[in-house]
Amino acid sequence: MKYIAEGDDVLLYLDRERTYQLRVKAGEQFHTHKGFIVLDDLIGKPFGSTVVSSLGISFYAMRPLIRDRVLKTDRRTQVLYPKDIGYILYQLGIGNGSTVVEAGTGSGALTMSLANAVWPDGKVYTYEIDARSQKIAAGNIDRSGLRPVVEMKLGDITQGIEERGVDAVSLDLATPWLVIEHAWNALAGSGVFLSFSPTIEQVMKTVYALEAKPFIEVETVELIMRRITVAENKTRPETLMIGHSGYLTTARKVIP
Amino acid sequence: MKYIAEGDDVLLYLDRERTYQLRVKAGEQFHTHKGFIVLDDLIGKPFGSTVVSSLGISFYAMRPLIRDRVLKTDRRTQVLYPKDIGYILYQLGIGNGSTVVEAGTGSGALTMSLANAVWPDGKVYTYEIDARSQKIAAGNIDRSGLRPVVEMKLGDITQGIEERGVDAVSLDLATPWLVIEHAWNALAGSGVFLSFSPTIEQVMKTVYALEAKPFIEVETVELIMRRITVAENKTRPETLMIGHSGYLTTARKVIP
Amino acid sequence: MKYIAEGDDVLLYLDRERTYQLRVKAGEQFHTHKGFIVLDDLIGKPFGSTVVSSLGISFYAMRPLIRDRVLKTDRRTQVLYPKDIGYILYQLGIGNGSTVVEAGTGSGALTMSLANAVWPDGKVYTYEIDARSQKIAAGNIDRSGLRPVVEMKLGDITQGIEERGVDAVSLDLATPWLVIEHAWNALAGSGVFLSFSPTIEQVMKTVYALEAKPFIEVETVELIMRRITVAENKTRPETLMIGHSGYLTTARKVIP
Amino acid sequence: MKYIAEGDDVLLYLDRERTYQLRVKAGEQFHTHKGFIVLDDLIGKPFGSTVVSSLGISFYAMRPLIRDRVLKTDRRTQVLYPKDIGYILYQLGIGNGSTVVEAGTGSGALTMSLANAVWPDGKVYTYEIDARSQKIAAGNIDRSGLRPVVEMKLGDITQGIEERGVDAVSLDLATPWLVIEHAWNALAGSGVFLSFSPTIEQVMKTVYALEAKPFIEVETVELIMRRITVAENKTRPETLMIGHSGYLTTARKVIP
Repeated sequence: MKYIAEGDDVLLYLDRERTYQLRVKAGEQFHTHKGFIVLDDLIGKPFGSTVVSSLGISFYAMRPLIRDRVLKTDRRTQVLYPKDIGYILYQLGIGNGSTVVEAGTGSGALTMSLANAVWPDGKVYTYEIDARSQKIAAGNIDRSGLRPVVEMKLGDITQGIEERGVDAVSLDLATPWLVIEHAWNALAGSGVFLSFSPTIEQVMKTVYALEAKPFIEVETVELIMRRITVAENKTRPETLMIGHSGYLTTARKVIP
Repeated sequence: MKYIAEGDDVLLYLDRERTYQLRVKAGEQFHTHKGFIVLDDLIGKPFGSTVVSSLGISFYAMRPLIRDRVLKTDRRTQVLYPKDIGYILYQLGIGNGSTVVEAGTGSGALTMSLANAVWPDGKVYTYEIDARSQKIAAGNIDRSGLRPVVEMKLGDITQGIEERGVDAVSLDLATPWLVIEHAWNALAGSGVFLSFSPTIEQVMKTVYALEAKPFIEVETVELIMRRITVAENKTRPETLMIGHSGYLTTARKVIP
Repeated sequence: MKYIAEGDDVLLYLDRERTYQLRVKAGEQFHTHKGFIVLDDLIGKPFGSTVVSSLGISFYAMRPLIRDRVLKTDRRTQVLYPKDIGYILYQLGIGNGSTVVEAGTGSGALTMSLANAVWPDGKVYTYEIDARSQKIAAGNIDRSGLRPVVEMKLGDITQGIEERGVDAVSLDLATPWLVIEHAWNALAGSGVFLSFSPTIEQVMKTVYALEAKPFIEVETVELIMRRITVAENKTRPETLMIGHSGYLTTARKVIP
Repeated sequence: MKYIAEGDDVLLYLDRERTYQLRVKAGEQFHTHKGFIVLDDLIGKPFGSTVVSSLGISFYAMRPLIRDRVLKTDRRTQVLYPKDIGYILYQLGIGNGSTVVEAGTGSGALTMSLANAVWPDGKVYTYEIDARSQKIAAGNIDRSGLRPVVEMKLGDITQGIEERGVDAVSLDLATPWLVIEHAWNALAGSGVFLSFSPTIEQVMKTVYALEAKPFIEVETVELIMRRITVAENKTRPETLMIGHSGYLTTARKVIP
């Protein structure tokens, strides 16, 4: 059992649409539209416990997972969906000790997911061209506690990658085809390349560029996620769904 | 750069349909339909390198990722797809140090993926009712090198879970609704429950059982993966696809 | 070439989101937010022509198709989508001269589509339990000019179907399983049964009821429609889509 | 009730995978792997009745629908799926009396569906460049009895369309973008253009060509059909499915 301690992040859960991320500090309060929470009440309780606001409303004090943190990142930048992040992590084949190059950092959503996967002995080198985005991402990553395995780099990855011998390169940017050669140079032999792109034109250019270099297992997929409503006599896929986020192209470097 | 050493597993890649997993031993040969490989030729080369068989056929010597190992597990037991495994790992919210209960072990495909995620400080407790399956899984897990973080348990998880305070419970078995109460008892507060089921009747029973216990964020989704053929004037989703593997139901334990 | 005449329905098209259905009457005007149209201007022009409003805005004067009329039916009742209506018409196997029983009438959207398919020698018998819905549907059907082949019946089809020897029975109602026996009695041998239902529980009950009677080719499908954005460097499936409207179950009557 | 008469086509149904199309002739037999049927036994029975072969095996004598005839067309040419044909018929907005230009004829599968829709007062002009295909299609169409409303034309539709003022143009050929101008010339104002294409490159070229001419409501969709297995405790989408047949692009002619 894990007990809530000072300095911990907690996700206050009211219902599916209303959750609040806070950091526990002794002697402080956290205000919501449903009253405030006395943070001392949280300390020493197990995660998952009930806490009651000043207005008598019950919340659950959840331990934030990476997927919770991803949902709380700045929404001005487009956020990847769980279906895509899970597939990316699995296809990259990373684990503790792996090294990954990522671009762009964006809000840090994927960065945190990658960092969690390579923790504690690996490293994520994440490139971002826009200083403002990088600053927002830095805040998210710092808060997640994963900063020790993240190296944030301000710069244009289409101009080159400095790292060598990395296990994986993961791209979510407008012109991935301009990074193919740099990715080949950066990857260890057998390393994994991945690119996420919303449009089919991006996919075409990326695949053609990959096929012009020593990459094998070049493959593009898209993932469609349907939520299912499960309730007595009402079980059915939800009416409205996200029809498309992006295509996922993967490949592996070989040495001819 | 990683160099191939004695004792390493290597995935010989001829083409997308023909790959061979072998363990490197000095002085030995590995025989394929395209001639044999002298394993001494591999030692000291970087992963991803080319190796030529006795018949002059070129192979690539790839480093096996978890996803390669999953594909090489015994096919007699149904194997989860990357789309599902990635989503499971991400939704479970696990990382180095996490503890997970899994059932059934099956071929060990998901077990290896979970073990890789919690490596090196976590633990996967995996229940299997069938001794023969467990033996096959043990072989796969041993070979992957992930055995130190896996505890294999022979027994019927519908009769109870011995562990307490675990971070996640992941089920892929015929009657998940019989495990809901045990899962609640085993989970730490805020811990994640996940169940993979092919049929909607299994989903209904599981969701109704979850809703009768203190679980929040009960949610069912299905993931559909489409492979895209990308080639000049031939770009299109592939004609034949896997239309359904299973539904994924998740929930989180709370303490009322 | 077809020329617009007095009494014709015209669909004024401003853009994809703004269309207006009107009936041409000499000497009258039709008012829109973009000014009014002098209807005399339309008479004698070919359909598809441009007409200019009093504010100088151009509209196209389109000939309304059944699918346009369906979109203009009362939206308070749920409307079937083109993907579903097209499939229904094709699976029912109807054409000029066919006889069809339908329930419920709803807004008349499917009724018009069926009537168009059996025109001019067939007949659609459409049952509706709610008088208010029937009245709205009657207005839509009258306007479409298809009334001569439609017989509107106020009543509860779960209590029985009066017709015999019909070519097809098409259901879009809450409890289709209560109509299976009546449908068998009403159908000619070899005739087609179809039911549209949003939930899987409805589908299960309907299929089990069909399998208990002399029906063959019992089959359930769902259709998913994705709109594709096609534009230079922006080609992709649309982000938001309708994930589910309903399941379509078909069967054919045999005489054992 | 419809009774089987000499000269009628009958679909003998053994099970979902084994059906046989035959024409009833007095005094003749029809041989199957399950024995022969005496065709005199069929005459005078209602469609949907049971008939027993010389080996004592029961068949159902079904009335062939257009969709049955489509399935029985020559399979060497690719066949459209019900999901696509239904959508095409509905989007074209045709009915008795409509005129349609189609290319290529292929096996005549869509031709029969179009002909059934415009019967008895309309006309389908169907272009085919390959004489051998046309001959096979002619056989299928003749057999269906729909020939009176079909005019078969041998020639290359990319060289021009002879008809004028038609209600709809429907294309299923390799280079639809070469037919856009001809289609505009052939269509009546407000008439509907439709093109079915497997690849996204075909779609792009077609859409760009449509947008360069006076067409509105240019829209591309794809339809995905999932079959659902419905059976006690086994209800689920089928494992294997057709992931893609083609994209459907529609538009309507305007007169600027």
